Amino acid sequence: MADKRFNSLPGFRDFAPDDCAIRNYFFAAWRSVAHRYGFVEYEAPILEETALYQKKAGDELNTQLFRFVDQGKRDITMRPELTASLARIVAGHQRNYPKPMKWFEIGQCFRYEKPQKGRGREFIQFNADIIGEDDPAADAELISVAIDTMLELGFTEEDFVIRASDRESWLKFCAENNVEDTTGFLGVIDKIERDKPEVVSEKLAKYNLTSEFVHAFINDPANASPAFQQIQKNLDARGLGKYLKLDLTIVRGLAYYTGTVFEIFDTSHSMRAVAGGGRYDDLLKSLSNGVVDLPCTGFAMGDMVIRNFVEETPHAKAKMDAWLKTQNPCDIYVVIADEEQRFNALKVVTELRNVGHKVEYAMTETKFNKQFKTAEKLGASKAVIIGSEFPELQLKDLHARTEETLELEQVITALA
Amino acid sequence: MADKRFNSLPGFRDFAPDDCAIRNYFFAAWRSVAHRYGFVEYEAPILEETALYQKKAGDELNTQLFRFVDQGKRDITMRPELTASLARIVAGHQRNYPKPMKWFEIGQCFRYEKPQKGRGREFIQFNADIIGEDDPAADAELISVAIDTMLELGFTEEDFVIRASDRESWLKFCAENNVEDTTGFLGVIDKIERDKPEVVSEKLAKYNLTSEFVHAFINDPANASPAFQQIQKNLDARGLGKYLKLDLTIVRGLAYYTGTVFEIFDTSHSMRAVAGGGRYDDLLKSLSNGVVDLPCTGFAMGDMVIRNFVEETPHAKAKMDAWLKTQNPCDIYVVIADEEQRFNALKVVTELRNVGHKVEYAMTETKFNKQFKTAEKLGASKAVIIGSEFPELQLKDLHARTEETLELEQVITALA
Repeated sequence: MADKRFNSLPGFRDFAPDDCAIRNYFFAAWRSVAHRYGFVEYEAPILEETALYQKKAGDELNTQLFRFVDQGKRDITMRPELTASLARIVAGHQRNYPKPMKWFEIGQCFRYEKPQKGRGREFIQFNADIIGEDDPAADAELISVAIDTMLELGFTEEDFVIRASDRESWLKFCAENNVEDTTGFLGVIDKIERDKPEVVSEKLAKYNLTSEFVHAFINDPANASPAFQQIQKNLDARGLGKYLKLDLTIVRGLAYYTGTVFEIFDTSHSMRAVAGGGRYDDLLKSLSNGVVDLPCTGFAMGDMVIRNFVEETPHAKAKMDAWLKTQNPCDIYVVIADEEQRFNALKVVTELRNVGHKVEYAMTETKFNKQFKTAEKLGASKAVIIGSEFPELQLKDLHARTEETLELEQVITALA
Repeated sequence: MADKRFNSLPGFRDFAPDDCAIRNYFFAAWRSVAHRYGFVEYEAPILEETALYQKKAGDELNTQLFRFVDQGKRDITMRPELTASLARIVAGHQRNYPKPMKWFEIGQCFRYEKPQKGRGREFIQFNADIIGEDDPAADAELISVAIDTMLELGFTEEDFVIRASDRESWLKFCAENNVEDTTGFLGVIDKIERDKPEVVSEKLAKYNLTSEFVHAFINDPANASPAFQQIQKNLDARGLGKYLKLDLTIVRGLAYYTGTVFEIFDTSHSMRAVAGGGRYDDLLKSLSNGVVDLPCTGFAMGDMVIRNFVEETPHAKAKMDAWLKTQNPCDIYVVIADEEQRFNALKVVTELRNVGHKVEYAMTETKFNKQFKTAEKLGASKAVIIGSEFPELQLKDLHARTEETLELEQVITALA
């Protein structure tokens, strides 16, 4: 190893401060929306017993896992997603919380995949779930969270759409058309947009169905389920109905969804889904071995696709950039004009910090002009200059270029 | 697995919302202090090449690691600490940031240890580092951050003390007393308070030294290094000098410290160190194979010991509890007195959320009194009641028990 500089592992990201500030922009937006909707934050461990995921996936375990054996010979996995942990925690703690529970989480997940645009081996997810309410009103509330998250990030009706469906529509279809293997059939619908027409026809032939017949079903709005119709009316009442589109091809790949399912896409559909979720009413019962049986609906948004989407959408990027400008490391720079006053300067720095300002100063003797240059680099809007006239100080507005002579107490009042 | 309910792995914590709020209290305190001091946030990957830690530890690798081989046959480790990653990231990004760099991080670390009070296999650390300044003024600035963190958490002079030393004092001692194996000797000093007196005497005899002679050195304040004396004066100027105590037995176990070292203890010394750190001027050069050579000083505080300390200190716990009360999931509860008004209620909920309030309501038809009970449970201070008089609404203060009749625009103004 002697001649090499270390790098991060492939698919893993370093968040140097400029990148970390962008990460924090998404955190702030997610938290802001979740709080307005009355969601409370939880967090789950990064590591879980592998069996937890086995149980959730119905024994077909994802092969793209960071899975290993620990020093205590446990088969453990770095979490690829949150829902299994959520169900485990809810089963253990739900007694302490009134229903429905509205919980959100922001944290990292890990999948051993080929790193590519919008997908790393590590990514951060925003998860929001409503537990204990089976009415479509809960799905509408959740979809509203998803829509408001997009609006909070500066997106408009022109930029994104929620494509939603309900597995119930298809279960009814299956019953009416003698399709017995509903899981297999939903798998065909899940890929119907990506597979070539001849592949779709071939797959559907196994169910004695034609592509025309299935597409006619998909294209008829009358096949929206009653739940979907309620969600549409609910969102209309909020003024958010225009973001929702019925799309019966959305069924979500995962086996555990039981009803309403949805995904957020950019309107040009040029990237992966930005977020996705739906109702999973049986998972909690299954993961708690029947101890706790609560209906759930939830969604997740990863940080990588949404960041790309923001960066490629000028008005969303402008909103982010404006926020980033407020994250300057320093509001007030204390300029030491006379090195003899260093200890008094430390007192000034301390008192300004004590009332909550972000304050910087040169830790060692530094030329007067260089201190102002640093103040500018750090984004300070004010300078407090301390020289031989102490306790008199100069308070300088670095934007307006105005200056006044004040004592410390007056400076604190002026900056309050 | 069929008959078991899943638990978290031993030494790993579930943060259900009540616990997550406490976690967030520490995050808020840490961020608040770091920002006031002009620190900017960064984050490093949870996983790193194992060799990164090998290099840092000088080839004696910690055996208590979550270390494994990934699907690409890489020897990787879940980070046991942040400094090695920090050095790696700084080496790669330092060109973009003016010096000195003041960086902080809040994130999880992992060690395969026996779980016990104040120590889990997973814990969260607050890391603050100043990079690119070798003057003791930087150590003083960093120790101030540590002190202000304790004050921010509600601790007082009676509760905690910073015990600080400087390895320079001992290097001078070694030079004057013909101690050649300084690393071995510092290891003896590191354990001098915990080892039995006869063990100490035996160990020191190997260096031709008596316990009396070494303790006399420890107890003489004249052996404070020039750097320590500068730090003391610097902190005195800030009014923080009273929290600092010279303690030459503090040398910190890790090999990479080069100068000032310190630890925070509760004054009764009844628990582990609450935080610790020091100067490590050579590590960056070593980890970057000489590419980047910047002096560094930093400290870390784990979340488990500090949380115990807060919970066992009544005035600190009272401060935390007061903060937790501000984290109620709901400010305004929209009470639906007439189910016919549900869609209008959704509009009211949406508009109140749009101006930033935390708003809740019953998603399905619920008895009038039960809605008020839920409002109380969720900590709402106001209720907006919507009935057949809509667009007239009742705005009720749930604490003062006052009520007024207003339209939505007036409610928004009244609550602004």
